[in-house]
This record gives sequence, structure tokens and C-alpha cells, in this order.
Amino acid sequence: MDAVIFRGPFDVAVERRPKPEIREPTDVIVRVRVSGICGSDLHAYRGHQKTEGGYIMGHEFVGTVEKVGNDVKFFTPGENIVSIFSPCCMKCWYCLQGLTNRCTFGAAFGFAALDGGQAEYVRIPHADGTLRHAPVGLDDRLLIMMADIFPTGYYAASRAIEALQMQKVSRLTSFSKQDDGLRTVSGSDLRDLTADSVLVCLGCGPVGICAIAAARSKGIKTIFAVDSVKDRLDEAKVLGAIPLQLGVEDIGERVRAATDGRGADGVIELVGNQAALRSAFDLLRPAGVLSSVGFHQAELPFTGLECYLKGLTVSFGRVPVATVFDAALGCLKENAEALKHYVTHELSLSQAKEGYELFEKHKARKVILCM
Amino acid sequence: MDAVIFRGPFDVAVERRPKPEIREPTDVIVRVRVSGICGSDLHAYRGHQKTEGGYIMGHEFVGTVEKVGNDVKFFTPGENIVSIFSPCCMKCWYCLQGLTNRCTFGAAFGFAALDGGQAEYVRIPHADGTLRHAPVGLDDRLLIMMADIFPTGYYAASRAIEALQMQKVSRLTSFSKQDDGLRTVSGSDLRDLTADSVLVCLGCGPVGICAIAAARSKGIKTIFAVDSVKDRLDEAKVLGAIPLQLGVEDIGERVRAATDGRGADGVIELVGNQAALRSAFDLLRPAGVLSSVGFHQAELPFTGLECYLKGLTVSFGRVPVATVFDAALGCLKENAEALKHYVTHELSLSQAKEGYELFEKHKARKVILCM
Repeated sequence: MDAVIFRGPFDVAVERRPKPEIREPTDVIVRVRVSGICGSDLHAYRGHQKTEGGYIMGHEFVGTVEKVGNDVKFFTPGENIVSIFSPCCMKCWYCLQGLTNRCTFGAAFGFAALDGGQAEYVRIPHADGTLRHAPVGLDDRLLIMMADIFPTGYYAASRAIEALQMQKVSRLTSFSKQDDGLRTVSGSDLRDLTADSVLVCLGCGPVGICAIAAARSKGIKTIFAVDSVKDRLDEAKVLGAIPLQLGVEDIGERVRAATDGRGADGVIELVGNQAALRSAFDLLRPAGVLSSVGFHQAELPFTGLECYLKGLTVSFGRVPVATVFDAALGCLKENAEALKHYVTHELSLSQAKEGYELFEKHKARKVILCM
Repeated sequence: MDAVIFRGPFDVAVERRPKPEIREPTDVIVRVRVSGICGSDLHAYRGHQKTEGGYIMGHEFVGTVEKVGNDVKFFTPGENIVSIFSPCCMKCWYCLQGLTNRCTFGAAFGFAALDGGQAEYVRIPHADGTLRHAPVGLDDRLLIMMADIFPTGYYAASRAIEALQMQKVSRLTSFSKQDDGLRTVSGSDLRDLTADSVLVCLGCGPVGICAIAAARSKGIKTIFAVDSVKDRLDEAKVLGAIPLQLGVEDIGERVRAATDGRGADGVIELVGNQAALRSAFDLLRPAGVLSSVGFHQAELPFTGLECYLKGLTVSFGRVPVATVFDAALGCLKENAEALKHYVTHELSLSQAKEGYELFEKHKARKVILCM
């Protein structure tokens, strides 16, 4: 079969490889229909993440079940599926807690330890936990977002929104008798509690766009979308966010003006450098919530004293896709119309090299490879 | 009246001062019965927190309502009360959100901006939000804990436990159809979800002891209590924690042994230095939760990459006492028997200087001044 091989920084090529076979009874072989190029593929492509070459790239793919191992319960040949970006066994302690992103299986698709899905076929370990049936009627261009970027954006937004809801729930359920008037709202929908919260999304690449869509679906009326790239801000605006271009607008001033000078209730940070993380901190009001998905290598750009005085809550790290899949999918469907043109480049597998180059140079919003 | 005056580092004295009067129609004058010396009084006493001298110290006090302003609705002369450590107006945006610790009134008792309660009388601004009626039958030695240390410990524990519960609720409510078996538990009590979680309390001074009591009341079975002071660990053990003495036990080893090598689900950090915060981080499992109440001045002792790889959630800062008061009080009552000997020194107001010296040198577990 043909497959996209990582040979070293800025060097990918389509090569012939043996078609994968069932190795474990929990494996499924998938015939890939569409495979995406994701921002996190660029970590290795740009050489930031050091890896040995020679493996098949790609962790975003949709396709058809070709073969199933003897212990696979939920999938049969011919079914349309989307895969989660990393296998989850659904048996280890972490999976059973819902922390499927910490599955002890430990390998993600498209790295040296596990061949990825930018290929005609791919082997799926722990397929019952890792695959999801494709919902009827959802275009592959949208479905492929469910492998990684949509759940990641959904989770980034949810973490911030849920933490803000918890702040309000505490008020509603715990207020003393002398504030009975306030307690009567406790039956209201969680969604209503944060409808007037003000969020900022720092970074409007693919995951940022998904985070904005999710936040809108969760009822947040005011979302500021911050980026330097005009095309990204246009897309954010289509989804209902207020675009703020870096270097053009005074971001802090705009956010404070919308919050009586307090600052944002929550910030979703998707950039991954110290300047962005510091901006996120500064944009937050006291007791605000920071959801950081950006991949940060350096020191944290705020002191313990600043965190204490701000009363900061901050979450880092990856999404447990299996845990949020259904909720995120519902949210994607609600935003299907606005996102239907999100994929800008549909190339063939043989054009993978060109696809990587376009995406790396920000000349494509989203590239998919079609078999 | 007599009052404890802060004159400078390591220098407090009982001096005569005018009895306070009603200034605003929302004020109450309280005749103090018992006033506590709190760990946070030591920040100024030790000179770590620079303040001008000359004010009345103390933010923990219980007493009797003496006079009420014309706009006070909930209190009448003769009623027994406990005060929250800083006034909350219940009218500003933050108070209405339940973030009463961020009230725009902005002053805490016992600092230059607002005289405290280590005195025969004290003026309470925004008394309807700031005071709470004393429950019948609760001894002043326990009630005074409700001014600060018990809600602070309660909140420190709650933040960690609620974040862990949210992780589990996400699993229960969001799992895909192929995991229907898991979803059927969704009606179970939140408390049950974290019964088997493993917590570590780093620092077992007064707030740590309260945090342990709260965590036990919230159903946590395994709490490791870490401190270097033997007397504190004995108290932690009475409350049901597993004492681990710093420098004697291998803390990490003990926690890993209790968690199949994973690390603690949550750590409550109450020490306030970099070594403690780093230990807290290292003791946590992947996707663990850190609740930091310690007052940190320096850089955070972990990098962005470490936070990303750990999948850390961390909260900093102070408790909104008004918001958690009722829940914390219920918890204190459940632990009344175990905590009834917690106050080790009952002195007269005139012995305040001695009380500060004993407490500062760790020769007293808790000092109260009785009028």
C-alpha cells in the first residue's frame, strides 16, 4: 500500500509499505478514506519534536472497517468509522476513570511506536475503545475533525466553562439562609449560569475555531477571538466570535471594556508560548479560569504570588477524546453549517508532500488527503 | 476599650483605644467575647508583610451584637455572632457571583485599612453580608474556627475533591453508547465518586487540620498528612489521616505504594514555599489536581512542559467564606468531637503579647484571647 513516511524534518514522502495485519485479537484493520494533516504533525515535521524517521504519519482519519480481530465486539467489516487520535484500551485504571488520554497503552498514531493513518490501511489497537461509528449523514470533511481537533477544542472550552459553572453552583447551593433570595435560582440550567460569561480564545487555528464553536454551543454569548492571521479571524467571526487582530486592536482594552474593567471570566490559550500564556493571565479577572492547551516548553510566566492574588484556576494538557466524544459530536453537528467550508485543501495521498508544505506555511487552513 | 495594637515586627501591645461607633447605616458594633490569633496574623508580626503600625489586629472573633445601623436587616442587639475574616458587601459584582473573597470593599479586619477584633469591641462594615448567627450549642472554641481557618481548610479540600468529581462526572455522563455499562452509575452520589481517591495534605497546621477534617467529612477514605511537627501529625491522625513525618518517612514511596505507583489523585498544599509546591507536583498522578492555599512569593517550581505532560489542574488563592459558610459549618459540627481540644491556649486579652510569642514559636497549636 501507499503511505506517508516521515523521513526527517521537512521531509515526508509517499512510499510503498506492507498492508498491516491483525496482530492482537482486539485489533481492527481500517481501510482509510480520508486522512488529515494536523497542527501537531508539525511538531515532528518542523523538527521541534525529535523522533526517529521511518514511520507512517497521521492521527486523524476516517474509513471503513476491513478486518476485525476475534475479541472485537462493537465493529464489523464494512462499517464506517472515525478513530480517536490515540488508542484507549478501556481496561486500565485511567481509561476506567474516563482519563482515556492517559491510557497506559501509551502510544499515539503516527509516531515511531505506532504507524498512523496517512496510508491506505491502518491497524487500530484496542479498537473497541479507539474507534467510533460514523454518524449517518455527516460529511467526512467534518467527521475527520472528531479524531482530534474538535474534541480538543471542545475540551479546552468545556474546562473553562465548567469551572466557571462550578463557581456559580457553589454560590447557588451554599449561600447562607440570609441570602435565600439567591438560592431560588438553583434549579436553572447550568448553561444559563455562564451565558453572560466573557471568554477569550487566544489563537484561532483549527483547534481555536473548534473551541469557539463549542463555547457558542454551550451558550456563551461573548467570545473574543484573538489571532494575527486575518483569515482565521474571519472564520471565528462566522462562528459568532468578536475578532480582535493582534497588533491592530488593544486586546486588553477591548476585554476590559466588555467587563466593566474586570477582565475575562475565562481564557482559552492555544498558542503555546510564554507571551501568549502571560497575555492569558493578564486578560483574566480575579478568580478567573485559564484553560491551556498550547504546548509550552519553558517556565511559567507568572509567579506564585501573582497566582495567589489572582485566585487563578488553570488546567493544562490533552483531551480524553473517548470521554467527551458524544458531547463534542453533538456540538460539531450544531456547527456543521458554519464549519462546512473549513477544509480548504483536498489532495490525493500522493500529494502529501505538497499538503505538508502548504499547511506548514499557513497557506492552507486545513488539508485532508483523500484515498 | 483595650485593644491589641500592631506596633511593628515582633511588637504587639495592649493599648487603650476609643470604643468604635456606627459610621455607616450598614455597620454593626460587636462586643467581642473571644478573638483568635491566626497564622496569617504572623505575616505582619514576623515582618514578611510590610504594614504601617498603629492598628488593631485580629480577623477571627466571635461576640455579641451591641449596636446596629439603620440599614441592617438580619441582626439585632444581643445576638451571638461570628464574623467572616473580611467584609463582603453582597452588592458588588463579585459578591453576587459568590466570589465574596473578591468583594470590592477590599479591606480585611486587622490591617491598617480596617481595625480588627483583638479588642473589646469591633466595627463590622456591611454587617448583613459579613456576620453569621452563632448556631445554638456550638462552643466558642469551635465557632471561632468559622471566621477563617475552617472555611479555608474546607475550601482547600473541596476544590480538589470537586475537580476530581468533575473528572468522574464527565466519564459518567459523556461516555459513548458502546460503554453503556459505565453510564448506569450516573445517579450515584458525588461523594461516592471520590470515596477511593487518595489525597495528600502538605502542611498540618490549623488550616491543614481543618482541610483533613473536611476531606474526611466528604467521604475521602485515604488522606496522607505530611508535616515535620509530631504534635500536628498526632492531631491529623485523630481526624483519620495517615501521618507521614517529613524527614522520617519517604513520602513519595508511601503515596505511590497506596496508588499502584500512580501518585495521589489530589494534593492540598498549605505550606507556602517552592519546595512544598514542587513536592505537591511530584506527588500527583497524571491528570491530578492541586489545591494550593499556601502564600507563594516566588516563581512556580514547574515548567509549562511539565504541566502539559502531567495534565495538571491547579487552583490558587483565598476562600469565599460567605459562599461556603453553611457547608463548612455542617462539616465542622461533624468533626466537633475530634476538634474540641484543638485550642491549646486560652489567654486574657492582656496576655496577647505572650500569646503571639507562643504561637509564633510553634509552642501553641491555637491561641485564643478571651475578654
